Amino acid sequence: MCGIVAEYNPFHNGHQYHLEETRKKLKADIIIVVMSGNFLQRGEPAIVDKWSRARAALMNGADIVVELPTDFSVQPADFFAEGAVSVLNCLGCDLISFGSESGNSQAFGEAADLYLENEAELDDLFRQAHQQKQTYAQNFSDVINTYFSQFPLDLTQPNNMLGFAYAKEIRRNGYDMSIQTVPRKNSHYHDDELDSSFSIASATAIRRTLLEKREAFTAVETFVPAEMYDVLKNHPLISWENLFRLLDYRLSAISTEDLSQIYLMEKGLEYRLKEKISDAVSMKEFIESVKTRQLTWVSLQRICCHILLNNTKQAINMAEKRIEAVRLLGFTEAGRGYIGKHKNEWSIKLVSNLNKRTAPNFEQDIKAGHIYRLADKEQINHQDFYTKPINFIDNNGLK
Amino acid sequence: MCGIVAEYNPFHNGHQYHLEETRKKLKADIIIVVMSGNFLQRGEPAIVDKWSRARAALMNGADIVVELPTDFSVQPADFFAEGAVSVLNCLGCDLISFGSESGNSQAFGEAADLYLENEAELDDLFRQAHQQKQTYAQNFSDVINTYFSQFPLDLTQPNNMLGFAYAKEIRRNGYDMSIQTVPRKNSHYHDDELDSSFSIASATAIRRTLLEKREAFTAVETFVPAEMYDVLKNHPLISWENLFRLLDYRLSAISTEDLSQIYLMEKGLEYRLKEKISDAVSMKEFIESVKTRQLTWVSLQRICCHILLNNTKQAINMAEKRIEAVRLLGFTEAGRGYIGKHKNEWSIKLVSNLNKRTAPNFEQDIKAGHIYRLADKEQINHQDFYTKPINFIDNNGLK
Repeated sequence: MCGIVAEYNPFHNGHQYHLEETRKKLKADIIIVVMSGNFLQRGEPAIVDKWSRARAALMNGADIVVELPTDFSVQPADFFAEGAVSVLNCLGCDLISFGSESGNSQAFGEAADLYLENEAELDDLFRQAHQQKQTYAQNFSDVINTYFSQFPLDLTQPNNMLGFAYAKEIRRNGYDMSIQTVPRKNSHYHDDELDSSFSIASATAIRRTLLEKREAFTAVETFVPAEMYDVLKNHPLISWENLFRLLDYRLSAISTEDLSQIYLMEKGLEYRLKEKISDAVSMKEFIESVKTRQLTWVSLQRICCHILLNNTKQAINMAEKRIEAVRLLGFTEAGRGYIGKHKNEWSIKLVSNLNKRTAPNFEQDIKAGHIYRLADKEQINHQDFYTKPINFIDNNGLK
Repeated sequence: MCGIVAEYNPFHNGHQYHLEETRKKLKADIIIVVMSGNFLQRGEPAIVDKWSRARAALMNGADIVVELPTDFSVQPADFFAEGAVSVLNCLGCDLISFGSESGNSQAFGEAADLYLENEAELDDLFRQAHQQKQTYAQNFSDVINTYFSQFPLDLTQPNNMLGFAYAKEIRRNGYDMSIQTVPRKNSHYHDDELDSSFSIASATAIRRTLLEKREAFTAVETFVPAEMYDVLKNHPLISWENLFRLLDYRLSAISTEDLSQIYLMEKGLEYRLKEKISDAVSMKEFIESVKTRQLTWVSLQRICCHILLNNTKQAINMAEKRIEAVRLLGFTEAGRGYIGKHKNEWSIKLVSNLNKRTAPNFEQDIKAGHIYRLADKEQINHQDFYTKPINFIDNNGLK
């Protein structure tokens, strides 16, 4: 059983390649994907809803897709990894597969071990480094490279950094899970622009093309599987701009005192946010006006996401958070067989349908689904109630 | 000095007539209007902002327009009257003038005295009547008519009821203020439809025509002064529908527990509101789905207004509320003279400009102004900061 952590925002050829390689090279029989729902790690709404993205994954090689609870998805890499890896462990995965710039599977385990052996000292160094005017990621990489003369991973690469976070979680908790990385294909593309000489582009480049240059819509066709292209063509494409008015309202209505209690809120930022929102007419303009050298676009987006979702520090108390249930978004025939055979062994509930009994486990996700729908309420379906997992019968010989 | 309580939503020929009659028949030298700001007594946003409505009043006979604080404007008649009449008293008004169906000035004072002499017993009767399945207004009128064999006022008429509320406040507090009512002209019009054989229509009929039948826009031209017509033609016309998405969002994001703490929220209603919002796509549909025989459209709108404005029971504690300052929205030359001569005698601050020192008195109004702007942020100006009172020089001999 192989696990994958994903956002699929949107699902593209690189993700398909990763699933194929995982199936072939790693000889995975069952592939379980734990995927962010409608709000993502970088603090933004997904371009299309979780059901469409789960369906694309099932049509392109995944056997089971479950939802990473929102409280863990809209998080810095460490908590995101903690939630995702613990779900995969609970579902019986003895292998994790992820894409990376490094391509060296062994390096991740070694890097994690090195880090964990020196964690207390490194934490002290991070705290000191935090005084300086750099982002968290820059500080992190600087401290590591100063402390270790030779560290096995280049942590300035974003996918290495995420894989490193998964590896740390596995080693810290002693999960019985081996680590395999698939090198990213065509990794020399520019991150922000599509390069038509390849068939693989980053999700970022695809989103930018769709959201900022809508006239060039067909430009993304060669970079995503046909099913995903159909979804992108026929669904409203959601970005922060669709929800900006709601954030604007929320920042206008909330008191600075309550705002200071929002999860991840930094001291004093509540005043700056309330001041700058008054004249902003777009999310882009708003974030540009608030961000500083230390407070990056992504950190700010993530805080805004928690403001929008009304998540207080008290509600998202990570020290006490355990995932007790996950939502099943879909499965293939093979996936269904696997679930039937193993579900009684799991220490986590896998929930197919929401009802009075199961809903209390998913209050935060239900709320997030309601709010996501407001990006385009007439076109986006109910996300949680009235939905059943996708039952995808893969009879087209994909495997 | 004569005081008037108004909403002017929008300012129409009936309001102009009332101002003219007040000037001529009551020989008022200075007319002070205390007007609701951007959110009104019936729990809805004003069709155009407070500045446009204040300007129309100044151009048609008012000398001074001040804003009734939002905490008192979005209220049942009693608190609305308490706030409005106390402001007029503080500003030195020895006369109040209002339109009514009755037209008998003496009846209001008599009715108020009768009521106050028997208040304790009547309160008991109201409490008992509240058990029955009627609206508050129906109960009120029933109890009065059962208790008194002959009551001087017909309280089933909405303007009589409001005037009665002003009279009660005046008598209860012993304000030195005489009561004068101007009979409503053409009072046989249908409340909801325009009748083109008259030049006066109710504000309700004018709003309906503008908001629900936009094609018939010129139909309102004969019912409003030219200045107001220009405003209505050139400004975005705001109704609850422009703010419905924000209410939808707020109801999705707030917990039932916090929702139960909103001002005026009735027990158990928080569940019903959260349930019904999920499928509603308009305010009209939403209120229709929630309202009951006891819980009228207006009561529900008012609760929704407090939800939108994030007003908790704790924040709007009427037992402890006193108006210490009011915002000056505009004045004529005569009004300016009056202010200059008398402001030192007043027990209330009349504030022209918002700044660090004066803003803390108006936090609720500033918040309401921010939220009102979100109905159409690109077209509605800043409502509180960056605005100065209208200085209207009436050199056209209107007086």
